[in-house]
Amino acid sequence: MRFAVDAMGGDHAPKQVVLGTVQAARRWPSCGLTLVGDATRIEAELQAAGGRPANVDIEPASQVVGMDEHVKDAVRKKPDSSIQKAVNLVRAGKADGVISAGHTGVVVASSLLTLGTLAGIKRPGIAVPMPTEKGFTTLIDVGANIYCKPEHLLQYAHMGALYSRILRGVPSATVGLLSIGEEEGKGNELVLRATELLSQAPFPFKGNVEGLDIFKGTVDVIVCEGFVGNTVLKACEGCAETFIRIAMAEMVGVLGTAGDGAAKQVFEKIRTRMDYAQYGGAPLLGVNGLTIIGHGRSEARAVENAVRVAIELTQARLNQQILQSLQK
Amino acid sequence: MRFAVDAMGGDHAPKQVVLGTVQAARRWPSCGLTLVGDATRIEAELQAAGGRPANVDIEPASQVVGMDEHVKDAVRKKPDSSIQKAVNLVRAGKADGVISAGHTGVVVASSLLTLGTLAGIKRPGIAVPMPTEKGFTTLIDVGANIYCKPEHLLQYAHMGALYSRILRGVPSATVGLLSIGEEEGKGNELVLRATELLSQAPFPFKGNVEGLDIFKGTVDVIVCEGFVGNTVLKACEGCAETFIRIAMAEMVGVLGTAGDGAAKQVFEKIRTRMDYAQYGGAPLLGVNGLTIIGHGRSEARAVENAVRVAIELTQARLNQQILQSLQK
Repeated sequence: MRFAVDAMGGDHAPKQVVLGTVQAARRWPSCGLTLVGDATRIEAELQAAGGRPANVDIEPASQVVGMDEHVKDAVRKKPDSSIQKAVNLVRAGKADGVISAGHTGVVVASSLLTLGTLAGIKRPGIAVPMPTEKGFTTLIDVGANIYCKPEHLLQYAHMGALYSRILRGVPSATVGLLSIGEEEGKGNELVLRATELLSQAPFPFKGNVEGLDIFKGTVDVIVCEGFVGNTVLKACEGCAETFIRIAMAEMVGVLGTAGDGAAKQVFEKIRTRMDYAQYGGAPLLGVNGLTIIGHGRSEARAVENAVRVAIELTQARLNQQILQSLQK
Repeated sequence: MRFAVDAMGGDHAPKQVVLGTVQAARRWPSCGLTLVGDATRIEAELQAAGGRPANVDIEPASQVVGMDEHVKDAVRKKPDSSIQKAVNLVRAGKADGVISAGHTGVVVASSLLTLGTLAGIKRPGIAVPMPTEKGFTTLIDVGANIYCKPEHLLQYAHMGALYSRILRGVPSATVGLLSIGEEEGKGNELVLRATELLSQAPFPFKGNVEGLDIFKGTVDVIVCEGFVGNTVLKACEGCAETFIRIAMAEMVGVLGTAGDGAAKQVFEKIRTRMDYAQYGGAPLLGVNGLTIIGHGRSEARAVENAVRVAIELTQARLNQQILQSLQK
C-alpha cells in the first residue's frame, strides 16, 4: 500500500505535512508514503523531523497551487503542481490514493479529470464527519458538487452509508435529506425529487432532517447539495469558534484567573473535536481512486490521521463495496 | 400605534405570549396590543399575569395552526386561525403590525397573501440578527423565499442594510453575498448573477463571504437564498447548543462541582446570546405592513422584545425608507 501526500498543500505546508507523514510512516512501517512537491524543501523538513524513514520517498513537483487560485486556471496552467503530480501517481498505479490539504476545488477537479468516477457514479462528493454528542454524523456533499441532481443525492446516500459503516462501524446507517423542515413535502424541488428516489433505496431512509439534526445525531448520514453543505460546514466552524471564544472570556470573568487554565483546557479539547481534519480529513467519495481532502489548517496529527483513514478505506476495499452497492 | 400579537403561536403559547404582551404593555403604555386567539384561555392567562392592562385587548380566533401543518392547507382551511386573524387586523388598518412565534411558513404565507409586498419588492425575506464577537450580522433570507432570483438578493441587500441602520445603528452597512469561497467567480449561478447586480448597488458591497464570516462579523448584512439561510441558521443553533452542552460537561469534569455553577451561569448567558428571538424576533422585510416572526421557543422576554422591535421599526418608518431606497 502506498499513498501520495501533497507536501505543499495547506496553511502549514510543507513543515507540518512532512512531519505528519514521517509520524505516519513510523506508525505504519509497511505503508509507503510519497511526498510530492519541492524536493529541496521536503528534504530539509525531513531532516528537521529526524530523517527520512525508509518507507518515505519524494516525487518532485515544480509548481504549487495557491489557496485562492481559480480552479480552472490552476488545473490548466499548473500541470506540474504538487496536487496534479500526486493525483498522477494514483492514475499511474504508483499510489493507492492521494492526500492533500491544499485547494479543495483543485484537488476535486484534478481527481475528477485525472481519475474519473467509479462506473455508475455521476459525481463525487466530499464526506465530512460532524461531531455529535453521541458520535458522528456524516455530511455529504460539502463542496465538490455545486449543482446536484436527485440521482447524485441518492448516490451520496449509498456512499455515505458505506463510509459510515467502514469508518464508524455503523452496521446499518440511517440516511436523512437536509431540508428546511422535517415534514414530507417541505423543501425545494431537488429535495422533493430526491425524496422519491431515496424512499425506494435499500437503506433506512428517515426523510427530511433539518440543520439542527446534524449535531443531534438524528441520523448517521445526511445528504445535501454541495453549495448548501459547504456553507453549513463553514458556518458551523465559525459558530463553534466564536462561541468557544465568548465562553472562554465569560468563564474567566466568572471564575477569575482560577478558571482561566481550566477553561483553556476544556475549550482546546472541544475545538479539536470540531475540527474534522483531526479525524483524518474528508474523502472525496466516488472517484476511481482514493482522494482524502484535509482541512487547510491541517497540522501534523491531522496528516497522520488522514493516512490512517486512507489505509482503512483501502483495506476495506471501499470502492469495490460502492460498486457492489450500486448494482443492487 | 397598535400591534396584533398571535397569542396561540409558539411552544409556550398562550402562557408566555400573554405574559410577554402584558410586560410590553406596561413598558410602553402608549402602545396598544391586541392578543389574538382563544379568548377564554387568553383571559385566564391575563388574570394569571396580574390582570389586563388598559392598553391590551382581545380579538377572538377560533382556530390554531399546529407547528407541523402544511402551509397551503393551513392557509386555506383555517381562515379563522390566530395567525390569519392577526394579519387581517393589519390589513384592515386596525393594527400597525403583527407578531407571531407560530408556524413560520404560515406566518409568511398569510402575510404575503393578505398584505402583499411593498411596491417594487418581488419577495419578502426574513432578516435574522446573528451574534458575533463585536455585535451582529444580519442574515437575510432565512426561509421565506426558497427559490431566489438575483434581483431578490439585491432587494434583500437594500432592506437588510436599512434594517441594520435602524435597529443596529450602523450608518453605512456593508453587504456580503453568502457563497462557497471568498474569491470572485466562486459560487453557483445565482451568486454569480447576483454579484453583477450587487456590484452596481448604492451601498458598500464586499463581494462573496463564506459561512465562517457570519460569526466573524466581516460584513453587517449577508444575503442568501432562503433554503441556504434556513439550513445555516438551524445548523448553527444546533452547533451552538451541542458545544455548549459538551463544554459544560467537560468543565464540570475539570473543575468538579465547584465549576458546575459557574459553567451553568456562563452557558445560559451564551445560549441566550445565540437565541435570536431574545433580540426581538426576525422581521419579514418587504411586506406591505409589518410582520415580526418569533422563534418557536419564544418565552415572555422574547415576546416583549418583539414588541420593542415592532415599535422601533414603525417609528423609523422602515417601509417608507425601503421604498425610497429602491427608487434611488
